[in-house]
Amino acid sequence: MSVKTATRHLLALRAMPHERLLNLLDAAADCLPVVCGEAPHRDDLQSRIIANLFLENSTRTRCSFTVAAQRLGAGTVDLLGGTSSSSKGESLLDTAANVAAMGVDAIVLRCAASGGPAAIANTLDLPIINAGDGRHEHPTQGLLDAFTIVHHFDRTDLSGMHVAICGDIAASRVARSGVYALTQLGADVTLVGPPTLAPMSLEGLLDGLDNPGRVRVVTDLDAVLPTVDALMLLRIQFERHGGGGVPSDYRAHWGLTEERAAELPEHAIVMHPGPVNRGLELDATVCDADHSVVLQQVTGGVAMRMAVLLDCLG
Amino acid sequence: MSVKTATRHLLALRAMPHERLLNLLDAAADCLPVVCGEAPHRDDLQSRIIANLFLENSTRTRCSFTVAAQRLGAGTVDLLGGTSSSSKGESLLDTAANVAAMGVDAIVLRCAASGGPAAIANTLDLPIINAGDGRHEHPTQGLLDAFTIVHHFDRTDLSGMHVAICGDIAASRVARSGVYALTQLGADVTLVGPPTLAPMSLEGLLDGLDNPGRVRVVTDLDAVLPTVDALMLLRIQFERHGGGGVPSDYRAHWGLTEERAAELPEHAIVMHPGPVNRGLELDATVCDADHSVVLQQVTGGVAMRMAVLLDCLG
Amino acid sequence: MSVKTATRHLLALRAMPHERLLNLLDAAADCLPVVCGEAPHRDDLQSRIIANLFLENSTRTRCSFTVAAQRLGAGTVDLLGGTSSSSKGESLLDTAANVAAMGVDAIVLRCAASGGPAAIANTLDLPIINAGDGRHEHPTQGLLDAFTIVHHFDRTDLSGMHVAICGDIAASRVARSGVYALTQLGADVTLVGPPTLAPMSLEGLLDGLDNPGRVRVVTDLDAVLPTVDALMLLRIQFERHGGGGVPSDYRAHWGLTEERAAELPEHAIVMHPGPVNRGLELDATVCDADHSVVLQQVTGGVAMRMAVLLDCLG
Repeated sequence: MSVKTATRHLLALRAMPHERLLNLLDAAADCLPVVCGEAPHRDDLQSRIIANLFLENSTRTRCSFTVAAQRLGAGTVDLLGGTSSSSKGESLLDTAANVAAMGVDAIVLRCAASGGPAAIANTLDLPIINAGDGRHEHPTQGLLDAFTIVHHFDRTDLSGMHVAICGDIAASRVARSGVYALTQLGADVTLVGPPTLAPMSLEGLLDGLDNPGRVRVVTDLDAVLPTVDALMLLRIQFERHGGGGVPSDYRAHWGLTEERAAELPEHAIVMHPGPVNRGLELDATVCDADHSVVLQQVTGGVAMRMAVLLDCLG
Repeated sequence: MSVKTATRHLLALRAMPHERLLNLLDAAADCLPVVCGEAPHRDDLQSRIIANLFLENSTRTRCSFTVAAQRLGAGTVDLLGGTSSSSKGESLLDTAANVAAMGVDAIVLRCAASGGPAAIANTLDLPIINAGDGRHEHPTQGLLDAFTIVHHFDRTDLSGMHVAICGDIAASRVARSGVYALTQLGADVTLVGPPTLAPMSLEGLLDGLDNPGRVRVVTDLDAVLPTVDALMLLRIQFERHGGGGVPSDYRAHWGLTEERAAELPEHAIVMHPGPVNRGLELDATVCDADHSVVLQQVTGGVAMRMAVLLDCLG
Repeated sequence: MSVKTATRHLLALRAMPHERLLNLLDAAADCLPVVCGEAPHRDDLQSRIIANLFLENSTRTRCSFTVAAQRLGAGTVDLLGGTSSSSKGESLLDTAANVAAMGVDAIVLRCAASGGPAAIANTLDLPIINAGDGRHEHPTQGLLDAFTIVHHFDRTDLSGMHVAICGDIAASRVARSGVYALTQLGADVTLVGPPTLAPMSLEGLLDGLDNPGRVRVVTDLDAVLPTVDALMLLRIQFERHGGGGVPSDYRAHWGLTEERAAELPEHAIVMHPGPVNRGLELDATVCDADHSVVLQQVTGGVAMRMAVLLDCLG
C-alpha cells in the first residue's frame, strides 16, 4: 500500500509554508540556465509520465508544463477539454481517477471548477498540480510572477517592496495567487481597477493572509505609479466575460499607456501574464520597452514549472 | 523487400488462436507491475514510433496506448479525426498509407468503418492495431476485460465461470470482442438488455464462435444476477444514438442499482468500460464499492496494450 | 549574448544558395535509410525541443516534422491553431515570441500570413522553419519534391530535364517553392492549368529566378505530356476556394486520367503533394501505378525534414 499522506501536491499558494515557497524559488533559479540553454538537460524525472489534463484550453500553460517536463527527462500525455471523456458527461473526479489508473506519475490539471484539484487530491494517490481552477488560484502563475520579481531584484525578502496588480482583479486567479505569494515574501500589494472589477470589498475577501494589512484595493492607477517596484497588468479576458464590467474608457484610466509608463520609477518593472491585448491594458511600446519583463515571465515560468515538478515528483 | 506475411497485426479477437490469447494475457501480467510503478520502465521499443490514427475521438483509449508506448520506450505521434487529411475527403486507406510512408513502426487505428483496420492490414506492410472499428470489434478492450477477470480470479481457464454483459449489446463492439475472448477462455457469457438493444437474434449473429452454445441472450437481468462471477455494464452512448432504443425505464430494469447489486454473489466483480453514466447503467455507490474493478480495468488496459505492442512490434 | 546573425532558418527556396540546396539533398539521402528502418535512429538532436506552431492545421506536415524530430532524438511540443493564444487575438509575432521565450530550440511555423516566418526570423533569435506561409512558399515541400526527383533519377544536376506542374498554380505555394528548387538544379519547368488558375502573367511574377527562361506557363497538358520526365499534379483545394476558378471540365483537360498517363514517356514519374482527389486531378489507377512516386514523396519528406532540422539546429 502506498502512503497517501506522503503525496505532494501543488494546489494553492494560500497558506503555503514559507520554507516551501523559498525552496521553489531556489529550485527555479537552479533550473533557469537549463531553460536558457546555458546548462544541459536534466534527467531527474526520466521515465516518468506527466498527464496534462486541461479541461479548459490553455495552449500556453500546457506547453510550458510540457517543455518543463521534457527538460527534466519526463514524458507527457495530453488530455484536452472538448475531446475528453468529460465531454461525455463524466465527472471531473471520474476523469481524473481514470487518468490516474493509467499509472501516470502526476496530473497537471486545469478545470473550470474552483477547488477541483483539491477535491481530487483528497481522493487520489498521486501528485496533483493545479494549473488554474475556476476563479480560485493559478499557483504556478503566482510562483512564476514572484520568481520574476525575486530574480530581477535579486532578493527573496521583498519587505518594503511595492507591487501593484491592475485589471479585472475580482475574476482573476492570477491576482489571487500573486497576492498570496508576494505578501508571503514580504511585499506590499496594491490591487487596482475600476470598481466593477476591483471592488473595495475584495480587501475583506482576501482572508487567509498572514499579513492582510499588506494588501489594499484602490481605483486610481495614476496615484499608485510613482511608488511601485513592479506593476502587473492583467489581461482583459474578452473570451470569458465578453467585456462585461469593463468600462469603455478602460485604457484611459487603467491602461499602461506610454505617458503613464513615464510616471513609473526608473527601476520599476512591467509584468503581464499574457496574452497581451496591446493597446488596451498595455501599450505596444511599453510592452516592448526595456523595463518590460513579460517574456522573462514566460522563461521563468518554465523554470518554475520544472521546480514544481521536481518538488512534487522528485 | 520486406515479407508482408510476417507482419503481425491485432485486428479482431474472433478466431484468435488460443495460444496467442494466452500469451497476451501472460505478457500483460508481466507488464502490470510497470504500470503500477512497482517495476522500472522497459526499453523494448526504444526508438520506435507508434502512430495513433484516431479518426473517431477517444481520448481515453488514445492515452492508454500512449502511456503503454512510453512505458516501453517508444515515441508516439497523434493524428486525430477532424483535423487530419481524412477531413479533406481522403480515403481511410490513403490516409493510412501516407502515415505508413512516414516510416512509423505501427499504426493504432480507430475508425468508423467496420473492417477498416483489416482492409488496411491487407494492403500495408506494418503492424495495424485495431483500437475500435465501427460496430465490429474493439479487441484491446476485449483483451483487457478478459485480463481483468483472469487477473482477479487468478486463472486463465474460465471454464464453468459465468460472465454477463448488460446494455446496448447490438451496437457494442466492446460486447462483441468480449464474447470472443471470454468464450475462447471457456467462460459462459450471457448478454442482457431490452429487446431493442439485445434482440434474441443476436445469438445467431455471433457466428465464428468455437462454442456458440456458451452464449445466450436474455432480457431479465434480475434472473441472471445470482449466478454471475462477473457482470459488465455497458455505457449507454447518448453521444452516438441520442438515446434511441433506450427504454425510459432502463435503470429500473437494467441498471445495476444498489438493491440489485445486493443480489450478486459475494465473490462477483462489477465491470464497466467507462466512461460511466453514474445513476443510469451503474449506481454511484456500486461503482465505488469494493467489488467494482472499473479502475483495475483501466490499469490492466495499459498493461494489455503494452502486451499488444510487444506482440506486434517486439 | 547570442549572436543573432548566426541563427540559421529555412524561410524560402527563392534565392537559396546552390551549395546549401545540394547539402540538404545530400543530408536527406543520408537520412532516408533511417526513415525506411534500414539504419538506426540518430541522436544528433537529443534533448532538443522543436515547437510545432501550426496556426493553420496540417496534420500531415506536422506529423512529418514530428517523426523527423523523433528520429533525430528531439522532443516536440505542439501549438495548434484554434486552441492557441492566437485565437485570443494575439499577434503572430507575440505568439512566436512567447513560444521562443519558453526556451524551445526551434519553431516550425505554418501560418496564413505570407512572409510571417521571415518577419519572425527578423525578430527572434532561434531557428524558424517555414512549414507553409499563406500563398508564399512551402520550402520543405519544394525540397522534398526536388529530393524525390533527384533520388529517383540519381542525379543532382537536373539540366535538360523537364518537370511539369499542373493545377491551381496561382494559389500554390507548393508550385512556387518547387519552381525555385527545380530551376536552381537546372531543370526546365512547365506550369500547366486553366487560365483561371495558371494565367500567362505568372511567368512575369516568378521573379527572383536565376534563370527565368527555364519556366513557362501553358494551358495544354496534352502537348506537354510526351516530353516530361516528372509530372506533378497539384491538389484542387476545395477546402480553400470552394472550387472557385476550377472549370467543370477540369478532369477532362487537366486531370491525369489513365488514357492521358499512357502518353507519358516510359521513364517519367508522377507526383502529387497529397492528399489526392482521386478521380479529379489524378485517376486512382494512375496514382497506384508503378510510375507514381506519391508515397516516396512522403517518405522522402521525413528524410528532408530531418535534413532541415540538422541544417538549422545541428
